[in-house]
Amino acid sequence: MSITPLIEYEDATEEVLSVYEDIMATRGSNWVNNFWKALATQPELLKRTWNGVKSVMADGALDSLTKEMIYVAVSATNNCNYCTNSHTTAARAKGMTDEMFAELMAVVGMANQTNSLANGFQVEVDEQFRNGGRN
Amino acid sequence: MSITPLIEYEDATEEVLSVYEDIMATRGSNWVNNFWKALATQPELLKRTWNGVKSVMADGALDSLTKEMIYVAVSATNNCNYCTNSHTTAARAKGMTDEMFAELMAVVGMANQTNSLANGFQVEVDEQFRNGGRN
Amino acid sequence: MSITPLIEYEDATEEVLSVYEDIMATRGSNWVNNFWKALATQPELLKRTWNGVKSVMADGALDSLTKEMIYVAVSATNNCNYCTNSHTTAARAKGMTDEMFAELMAVVGMANQTNSLANGFQVEVDEQFRNGGRN
Amino acid sequence: MSITPLIEYEDATEEVLSVYEDIMATRGSNWVNNFWKALATQPELLKRTWNGVKSVMADGALDSLTKEMIYVAVSATNNCNYCTNSHTTAARAKGMTDEMFAELMAVVGMANQTNSLANGFQVEVDEQFRNGGRN
Amino acid sequence: MSITPLIEYEDATEEVLSVYEDIMATRGSNWVNNFWKALATQPELLKRTWNGVKSVMADGALDSLTKEMIYVAVSATNNCNYCTNSHTTAARAKGMTDEMFAELMAVVGMANQTNSLANGFQVEVDEQFRNGGRN
Amino acid sequence: MSITPLIEYEDATEEVLSVYEDIMATRGSNWVNNFWKALATQPELLKRTWNGVKSVMADGALDSLTKEMIYVAVSATNNCNYCTNSHTTAARAKGMTDEMFAELMAVVGMANQTNSLANGFQVEVDEQFRNGGRN
Repeated sequence: MSITPLIEYEDATEEVLSVYEDIMATRGSNWVNNFWKALATQPELLKRTWNGVKSVMADGALDSLTKEMIYVAVSATNNCNYCTNSHTTAARAKGMTDEMFAELMAVVGMANQTNSLANGFQVEVDEQFRNGGRN
Repeated sequence: MSITPLIEYEDATEEVLSVYEDIMATRGSNWVNNFWKALATQPELLKRTWNGVKSVMADGALDSLTKEMIYVAVSATNNCNYCTNSHTTAARAKGMTDEMFAELMAVVGMANQTNSLANGFQVEVDEQFRNGGRN
Repeated sequence: MSITPLIEYEDATEEVLSVYEDIMATRGSNWVNNFWKALATQPELLKRTWNGVKSVMADGALDSLTKEMIYVAVSATNNCNYCTNSHTTAARAKGMTDEMFAELMAVVGMANQTNSLANGFQVEVDEQFRNGGRN
Repeated sequence: MSITPLIEYEDATEEVLSVYEDIMATRGSNWVNNFWKALATQPELLKRTWNGVKSVMADGALDSLTKEMIYVAVSATNNCNYCTNSHTTAARAKGMTDEMFAELMAVVGMANQTNSLANGFQVEVDEQFRNGGRN
Repeated sequence: MSITPLIEYEDATEEVLSVYEDIMATRGSNWVNNFWKALATQPELLKRTWNGVKSVMADGALDSLTKEMIYVAVSATNNCNYCTNSHTTAARAKGMTDEMFAELMAVVGMANQTNSLANGFQVEVDEQFRNGGRN
Repeated sequence: MSITPLIEYEDATEEVLSVYEDIMATRGSNWVNNFWKALATQPELLKRTWNGVKSVMADGALDSLTKEMIYVAVSATNNCNYCTNSHTTAARAKGMTDEMFAELMAVVGMANQTNSLANGFQVEVDEQFRNGGRN
């Protein structure tokens, strides 16, 4: 059920297994989702992607719940069904309520609307907004 | 500098002016940015869009800074220069630091990467993630 | 001012010139826009693309003004500045008024909004809408 | 079958029911589609979105069939399955024939092709097309 | 199972049949895939699209396997399930190994990531990269 | 000229400088482009992204020129001006001719066209193409 075989635990090499174990340990869960099993056909891609996700999604200047909601926002915009479902699940596990989800979607919808309006009207960036208001 | 004329204050009808005034009052600013001046060529579109943005972006279950960062995430994904610059400016005004912006971008980049990987590998949604983990 | 040289009239081969002449004749104009001059670095691509555009954009079951507006809708959605500007110009030449443009943009904005909402909420297609309501 | 529960008639609040009734009255139909039932988990989002769609999609400077076809064009470009199916159904109900649909798709395909070509070649906007040919 | 009826061999006109036969002859196969059967509802669209694909995808300055992989890269980016599956199948038939596919996906993922980063940071094109490094 | 300051060599920390030096050594060049200088505001993001790009873009089962062309294909599709220009420059430096670029663009254009057609027609994946033809 993917373009490459899914690598199950029992078929995983040492290298792949150690990533699987890190995924489960980091999440405090006892299973690995299909995304990683698909990437595991190329261990280098699996390791690099997981290490990136683990590092990026940890609490930092932004808390991890906010990060999950940003992930959902991008995934809904790109229409990635897999990512929308998996990161919504993750956001819920971290405390996102139905009301927060609905507000998140309201912002996503509004942003997609005004993005196309600004592009369609070819509106020039105001002096005050240049470089994201940096100067 | 847009596909329609920008409607300046002195050329605005009563209807348009009252939206401009609401924009400035809501933001505590003394100017209106080009986006609204472009939409003002069709007052109905201006009013509806502004009322939507005002309502959606207010503090709620999500605070308005988080909402601005979500807006930036969508705008960067869609490559809307106008929106990326204007909402980054707004997020900064509400307290987003350089470090928070960098983390925001790191999440956006990661999400765009894994979105294309999940789609490219055609990974099937895990049972546990169906309906965003709702049941 | 493009990734390939723009092929001007005086540098064009017979093959390219005959396309340029067909473009001008079809449009009743006396110049060729940059898009075609960029494609002319590969005459085969130029010919095929122009023949496609010419055939697709002619009056048919849909009139050519409606077609130009659909072109603008897609271009604003994809954020193609070149195409948004050129096809808006074409639509205006065929009779699109400022009011029609504003309504066009209102639909484009609404569609981009609800597209992301339907994807974000992962709404299942109603039985009645399957196959575009064909049965 | 969506990330939030679908709110059925019998579970709807007064506020939600009055939107459902307006949807059915406006369309002359006796059912409400899943999209609105999903949004109904947040009545404010439901009301604002429906009022926007109702206002934008009504006959105006553009007739409502043209608007539905523009909606389909955007939805196909964004690959929103729900919206492509629902708005194709709506367009058919308003008179879109198979031939019109095929021409619509031909324009959508052509626009997506030339959008990527103009972006890929980085073609500069001709003087004559600046601001959508406004001056 | 598509928005228009699929035109099967036995229901095809002469015009459509001759395209079907060219598809099968070009590919050395004995069947026609659903995409073409859907387009066949408008023979002109079928013919033009097939002739374009046939011409573009043939060996040239780039070999046809490279072209198939580029097709997959675009399709994964746009999240076109149909195209991702069909062109991955085609690439495999032309010699793409699992390892090549994994590297292809790694590049696609990286490009989507850095695309959103460059847009999000609003990075200005370096002098040395203007016009794709042409001068 | 970006949303964050560009970190120049003289302002770089040891950590950032060592990445800059690796970039130049890997490429055999004596300068660092703006993209990396923008990311350098967050050294962790800089390092992770560069290490990813370096690893992914090296010769492997696919040669590095093919990888650069795939990068350009994705960038043109997403309309990332920075990436389109920088990776076209890189592809040229590795041997991409004007003819190869034109063929690359022809494939990109065709893929974007048929992606929107397959999505618009909602064509079901043929049995033979399921899972990218894996079984």
